[in-house]
Amino acid sequence: MAVELLDNEQTELRLSQLNQALGSGMFVHVRQMLLNMAASDIALVLESSPPRTRQILWQLIDQEQTGEVLEELGEELKDQLIRQMSPERLARAAAGLDTDDLAYILRSLPDSLYKQVLQSMGSQDRSRAEQALAYPEESAGGLMNTDTVTIRPDVNLDVILRYLRQRGSLPEATDTLYVVDRRDILLGGVNIATLLTRDPSTPVRELMDADLEAIPVTMADSEVAQLFERHDWLSAPVIDQDGRLLGRITIDDVVDVIREDADHTMMGMAGMDEDEDTFGPVLRSTLRRSMWLTINLFAALLAASVSNLFENTLEQFATIAILMTIVPSMGGVAGNQTLALVIRGIALGHIGQSNSRWLLGKELAIGFLNGLLWSSLVCLAIWVWKGEWQLGALIGGAMLINMTVAGLAGAAIPLLLKKLKVDPALAGGMLLTTVTDVIGLFAFLGLATLFLLR
Amino acid sequence: MAVELLDNEQTELRLSQLNQALGSGMFVHVRQMLLNMAASDIALVLESSPPRTRQILWQLIDQEQTGEVLEELGEELKDQLIRQMSPERLARAAAGLDTDDLAYILRSLPDSLYKQVLQSMGSQDRSRAEQALAYPEESAGGLMNTDTVTIRPDVNLDVILRYLRQRGSLPEATDTLYVVDRRDILLGGVNIATLLTRDPSTPVRELMDADLEAIPVTMADSEVAQLFERHDWLSAPVIDQDGRLLGRITIDDVVDVIREDADHTMMGMAGMDEDEDTFGPVLRSTLRRSMWLTINLFAALLAASVSNLFENTLEQFATIAILMTIVPSMGGVAGNQTLALVIRGIALGHIGQSNSRWLLGKELAIGFLNGLLWSSLVCLAIWVWKGEWQLGALIGGAMLINMTVAGLAGAAIPLLLKKLKVDPALAGGMLLTTVTDVIGLFAFLGLATLFLLR
Repeated sequence: MAVELLDNEQTELRLSQLNQALGSGMFVHVRQMLLNMAASDIALVLESSPPRTRQILWQLIDQEQTGEVLEELGEELKDQLIRQMSPERLARAAAGLDTDDLAYILRSLPDSLYKQVLQSMGSQDRSRAEQALAYPEESAGGLMNTDTVTIRPDVNLDVILRYLRQRGSLPEATDTLYVVDRRDILLGGVNIATLLTRDPSTPVRELMDADLEAIPVTMADSEVAQLFERHDWLSAPVIDQDGRLLGRITIDDVVDVIREDADHTMMGMAGMDEDEDTFGPVLRSTLRRSMWLTINLFAALLAASVSNLFENTLEQFATIAILMTIVPSMGGVAGNQTLALVIRGIALGHIGQSNSRWLLGKELAIGFLNGLLWSSLVCLAIWVWKGEWQLGALIGGAMLINMTVAGLAGAAIPLLLKKLKVDPALAGGMLLTTVTDVIGLFAFLGLATLFLLR
Repeated sequence: MAVELLDNEQTELRLSQLNQALGSGMFVHVRQMLLNMAASDIALVLESSPPRTRQILWQLIDQEQTGEVLEELGEELKDQLIRQMSPERLARAAAGLDTDDLAYILRSLPDSLYKQVLQSMGSQDRSRAEQALAYPEESAGGLMNTDTVTIRPDVNLDVILRYLRQRGSLPEATDTLYVVDRRDILLGGVNIATLLTRDPSTPVRELMDADLEAIPVTMADSEVAQLFERHDWLSAPVIDQDGRLLGRITIDDVVDVIREDADHTMMGMAGMDEDEDTFGPVLRSTLRRSMWLTINLFAALLAASVSNLFENTLEQFATIAILMTIVPSMGGVAGNQTLALVIRGIALGHIGQSNSRWLLGKELAIGFLNGLLWSSLVCLAIWVWKGEWQLGALIGGAMLINMTVAGLAGAAIPLLLKKLKVDPALAGGMLLTTVTDVIGLFAFLGLATLFLLR
């Protein structure tokens, strides 16, 4: 059968065959294997290889494939490879690309190289590039392609059918032809399935969907992604403030935005950049991660300086020192649950002015209830372990305070950061941990000092 | 202009209008507002409302819209609403649904209700439902719709065009007609753009893409999502082991899988279920979160029992107690960075047999280098703060050990869990924190006991 499939096992197999061929220096064979692979699969192999293998593979990839492979790569690796390429090779690679990818490559170049590459391009590519660069990268304008097929409302379907047959092909992933007036104002859209199923004598005006929703060119790309997800769109037209059609956004580019946003949240919460390259060089990774560690060091020193306030108590009661890590730990976990929930809610567009107060109340209540539950259990556990009910009561009380605060802080911190236009995924976790560490230690050591030290 | 747009601000506005109308008891007005909204927007409003408001809104939604709204909801809320519905209302709601959503609803019913609902259905819906239930939910079979349009290879394009015009419409999001032989074996596909642009006298055999990749019905849904992302597909055919066409998967359903997988990873790492409902009832949320807190309590007690081993040291040196939280904290952050990177790499299909050893080596090296860097800095900071270089050296040494272990554990734990077929996003974080806490405390208190206690 002609229908073939590349699943993960086959990727793994192919990867090991490539590695074997590379290892034994059979470069001609490798080049042949690469020629038979789709650009997306080559990109996967590059992403999955250590630096040295990558270098060799990159040399062996056919010039014709360079552009397409670049399109499929993650940002860190893409930037790194672009920096190595000559202006001529870049210009040639850029020739076949979509407008948005073209803009990406040009944007990532240093100024001098940028001009060189632009000059090496054909005039058509150059004007496409200049068009694409007119909009910020993380906006609808940066995401759109300008290859729309437009039609007029006052012709019949058979005219359109003849025109398309003459045209010979449609731009990739075209599912809608856009109806515009003489000034390019968007009037509606005609799904191409409609063209196939309706009577050819029908006028376009009757076929078209005039309630088509359009995206303003300035909309943020994450908001575009939310709209696509919510409405199950495959493509959407992009308009300027006067309603003129500028281009279209297709779902495949939106999927990349969804993936990037999700990676950004998940990696950001762990204190990483979403572009961090899994198989990148050791030194670069070490440096990239140190920023977060610096911040954490200050947070940890802050927590230690809280303990320092209670040196006296710690000197007299070693047991307090032994138990003091439990309270911050439970508060941290409880707060982090709330934080993750609220960050996701913000990302999905579920949380706004009208319901954030309710949410704060709910998370405060959960924090308090969980605090009650766990402080009783811990109180009991410590009583059994250390044989002193006072110690259990102390740790229980501190935990109740800390978990209640954790619930409130876990919801309030991301909401506050969002208002300040700081990314909650990046700053939220560290701020929260600092709060739960400081409050947890303060509550436990403070209570211990009050009740044990007479 | 006819072209309208619903962005986040307008959602917010509509939400507050709805709330106002609800608050003043204008239910007829609310019902009218809901009737004018798209199902996806109603779902958004439901997701964003507290429990009581939800109940009222749900009563006011038109019967006709029920099914579509259910399709768009998150799992926790969907399950809750389904449990309240009568079998008749469920059967009616199910009538208009896609096969995959139909299967979802039926699967979530208790056995007795399930049979009742199935009996209330029309025979066509019932057979569709039974077909859909034949495959596990998280497989290509569970994701596919069976509404494919198939054609034969031996006719000309104009026959197809006439057939489609007679048909009058195409299933939603159809971008490809599938070419099958008499036994339903998939031979290839014809993009509908091709139908519009090519000469009507061309035979289908010449038009069709015979290299079409097809998805086996048993493939896991996450793997399906990877393939769609990698190849920028809009739809793909699903086949059984003999190559027979069973249905098709469309990108809008895949986007849901991508979103669910991403949520699962992010929420899982924070110890939450991805279905956790942001505006759900307090008590249910409290209970749902307590599992993770239980595990964390054991981890924290384990860490405390490590400190307990060194009670003697802690009794003599309060400073050690004050500083002892720093080492686990830095190890935890460093390990968590590696963990997030490796979990993402696994999710993207970048990490396999051939490169995991390299990755372990890399993360070990980064852990060691970061350990060197931070232990020197901390050593210096503590020397300055406490005026004792021995103390600085102790904490620095412990931190070097802990961060190196953290790098190794952060990479090894998810790889190991993956081998054991345990979800690294769920279990990874807690295991890692336990390792870095225990090793961190053991290293610091152990070194302190060795060198300070004579």
